[in-house]
Amino acid sequence: MLAAKSEVQVDNEQVRVTEWRLAPGSATGHHTHGMDYVIVPVVAGEMTIVAPSGERSKAQLAAGKSYFRKAGVQHDVLNETSTEIVFLEIELKP
Amino acid sequence: MLAAKSEVQVDNEQVRVTEWRLAPGSATGHHTHGMDYVIVPVVAGEMTIVAPSGERSKAQLAAGKSYFRKAGVQHDVLNETSTEIVFLEIELKP
Repeated sequence: MLAAKSEVQVDNEQVRVTEWRLAPGSATGHHTHGMDYVIVPVVAGEMTIVAPSGERSKAQLAAGKSYFRKAGVQHDVLNETSTEIVFLEIELKP
Repeated sequence: MLAAKSEVQVDNEQVRVTEWRLAPGSATGHHTHGMDYVIVPVVAGEMTIVAPSGERSKAQLAAGKSYFRKAGVQHDVLNETSTEIVFLEIELKP
């Protein structure tokens, strides 16, 4: 599996903003979110989410349609489509 | 001047995310930012910024390229171009 690419756009006392790019066939790797976060999709796409149990689900992304998640989420995120996935992760520092 | 349109996507104890749409010829109206905030442009575009002094400047927006600003910023934001401006404002609650 290819590794997703990340680039930090903002990092200060309040917030860290990271751009994630998942080429077709790439994945973030299993990770645990240490902070509450907002995801802002930059392009439309479909992510495959793999839970620690191995359960797989699909999530649709629409450009500019954000969502919030609490700290503690654990998952791997895969791109099993033929187009690049791009989103921003906005982590809210406690 | 037309009014910009806004829609709240997320609003909780940590954060408020608002989608702003500025049609050609529209403006937000003069306002003061009460919270630190991150802007995520959803499409490329050019904003006209008007300071309280009346001084005007232009700001280029690139899709998915975010920036951070501290609370206290005062300005009006205008769309003097021929294409719609769309961005998310992520306000960080203290």
